Amino acid sequence: MEADIHVLTTGGTIDKVYFDRLSEYQIGEPQIGQVLREVHVAFSWEIESILRKDSLELTDADRALVRERVAASRCRRILVTHGTDTMCETARALGGLPDRTIVLTGSLAPAVFKSSDAVFNIGFALACVQTLPPGVYIAMNGRVFDPWKTRKNRAANVFETIPDDPGAPRSDRA
Amino acid sequence: MEADIHVLTTGGTIDKVYFDRLSEYQIGEPQIGQVLREVHVAFSWEIESILRKDSLELTDADRALVRERVAASRCRRILVTHGTDTMCETARALGGLPDRTIVLTGSLAPAVFKSSDAVFNIGFALACVQTLPPGVYIAMNGRVFDPWKTRKNRAANVFETIPDDPGAPRSDRA
Amino acid sequence: MEADIHVLTTGGTIDKVYFDRLSEYQIGEPQIGQVLREVHVAFSWEIESILRKDSLELTDADRALVRERVAASRCRRILVTHGTDTMCETARALGGLPDRTIVLTGSLAPAVFKSSDAVFNIGFALACVQTLPPGVYIAMNGRVFDPWKTRKNRAANVFETIPDDPGAPRSDRA
Amino acid sequence: MEADIHVLTTGGTIDKVYFDRLSEYQIGEPQIGQVLREVHVAFSWEIESILRKDSLELTDADRALVRERVAASRCRRILVTHGTDTMCETARALGGLPDRTIVLTGSLAPAVFKSSDAVFNIGFALACVQTLPPGVYIAMNGRVFDPWKTRKNRAANVFETIPDDPGAPRSDRA
Repeated sequence: MEADIHVLTTGGTIDKVYFDRLSEYQIGEPQIGQVLREVHVAFSWEIESILRKDSLELTDADRALVRERVAASRCRRILVTHGTDTMCETARALGGLPDRTIVLTGSLAPAVFKSSDAVFNIGFALACVQTLPPGVYIAMNGRVFDPWKTRKNRAANVFETIPDDPGAPRSDRA
Repeated sequence: MEADIHVLTTGGTIDKVYFDRLSEYQIGEPQIGQVLREVHVAFSWEIESILRKDSLELTDADRALVRERVAASRCRRILVTHGTDTMCETARALGGLPDRTIVLTGSLAPAVFKSSDAVFNIGFALACVQTLPPGVYIAMNGRVFDPWKTRKNRAANVFETIPDDPGAPRSDRA
Repeated sequence: MEADIHVLTTGGTIDKVYFDRLSEYQIGEPQIGQVLREVHVAFSWEIESILRKDSLELTDADRALVRERVAASRCRRILVTHGTDTMCETARALGGLPDRTIVLTGSLAPAVFKSSDAVFNIGFALACVQTLPPGVYIAMNGRVFDPWKTRKNRAANVFETIPDDPGAPRSDRA
Repeated sequence: MEADIHVLTTGGTIDKVYFDRLSEYQIGEPQIGQVLREVHVAFSWEIESILRKDSLELTDADRALVRERVAASRCRRILVTHGTDTMCETARALGGLPDRTIVLTGSLAPAVFKSSDAVFNIGFALACVQTLPPGVYIAMNGRVFDPWKTRKNRAANVFETIPDDPGAPRSDRA
């Protein structure tokens, strides 16, 4: 892996498309490649599609696969696109891998929609993966979150910091 | 009803949106109003949302309701937005209403998508409803179809004329 | 020319793009081809780019060229994309060509914009060219206009019918 | 200024819109506000429009104004949207202001275009302004550039690092 940034895709809303012939809505091709081609970025990147699932359906085996692929990467800067519902859980499963800046992002609306947070989030996450020190991060809602202290607020449809609890497990980066 | 054109919406792919909190894909608000507001059309229109269903789920009672609303309209030019799967069937259920130009349209991709036939089809159908004589028409794929001689080819995802059969029922406009 | 519809492009706002290297805004490639490819229309078409001008810059020689190309077409259904400022003037220069339905359209916002009337107008005009009898028509703002009785209201940025004048020249189709 | 991020807008391609009534292309309202409203970011922001110019037209007095507004800000994280042609020059004019992370971004295609780098660049720059230490940075083409070592390659339409020159002035952050 000689690219500056390694992108692993796992599915989630960001990659959801609509299949009229089936009258349903499924995970399609990774959308991030189309975004990167439109923007003419000045870094090299490689995309690896490892799963195509709604994040509510991800199993422990799926998370082990994501961890394995991140660990196997020869790249130190790794972006993972992922469904939002269990993004924090997968992020925590990526703790403890040395010398890697790992950033997870996704979107609340599919990238194929006219109005979507997907392109913004991809831009935001790609800056995080280049500027942050080694560790695991959630990049959503225009902010960087520590996965060990973050949850998705489903009612408000935003990520938020979990209020402090003196007994909580320590961050990967602490 | 004093508007130039009466728009009845019944649901279908054209109005499908994605609800991330539910992680599913459902019929949302009629999209045609948003389209008409963006374009600054020089005719008056009124939108009436009568159903919000995938057209595969429409019942005989639903079709009777559509016919009742079309018959009750004080407008002679009526556009019906509808799912594509049973659009021809609903169109045929609107036969025999005098003095009305009734055009059905919809889309193969949701209107909220960046790439969709929805806006094109709405423009096309709104010309048909103003230029065609009384009768019932399907306006899809950039063509005007006679519902009594048309079917949706699901494999190719296009509407097409059914090859002639001397014993077929006559068109509403014949 | 064996296509169902012959499209002649002359430039205008619909085809305007932005060239950052020049820091200016110019007529680019005809946009209508991209629109037709996205929609999967069920008719055949051929595009001929004959001019790339803002319509305020069109000369009598340019209009003679448009008339010559329309007259030379072997197709009876002809769509002309054109700038809006002198669309009515060009339309009138196309009067008296027998056996042809000629429709002019364009847009008030460039087709490359997120919010534009271009796709709607193209859909609308393509229905007009298939449904209207021989003659010359303006298809703008979701309405069909007679070029001999129409003007662009620049202040309101819409096309409108010129109030009746008993001494006005007769329509091409009267 | 109590917002997390202070956004100063100066014009440039990112804010260019098309005025059909004038048949020309000018700097419009700042587009970044619309982008931020669509994305539902979880930080507070304030937008201040200080100039509306193509960056080739910026004068020394304009740059002095930008510096004055940055220096006057009570916010430590400041994003400046700017035309690309002289972005590096303005960035260098912002050197030496203590305790501020200042990021300049813009776009090669207007934000109102269907295909534009604007939303990606805004997302990227907003991560930079939150993650980078005090200093002045260019965020373009998906990379962070040091304004004292960067130029816009107009032929290739990308930003690039100027090859090392032992006698070059030192970076603001060195």
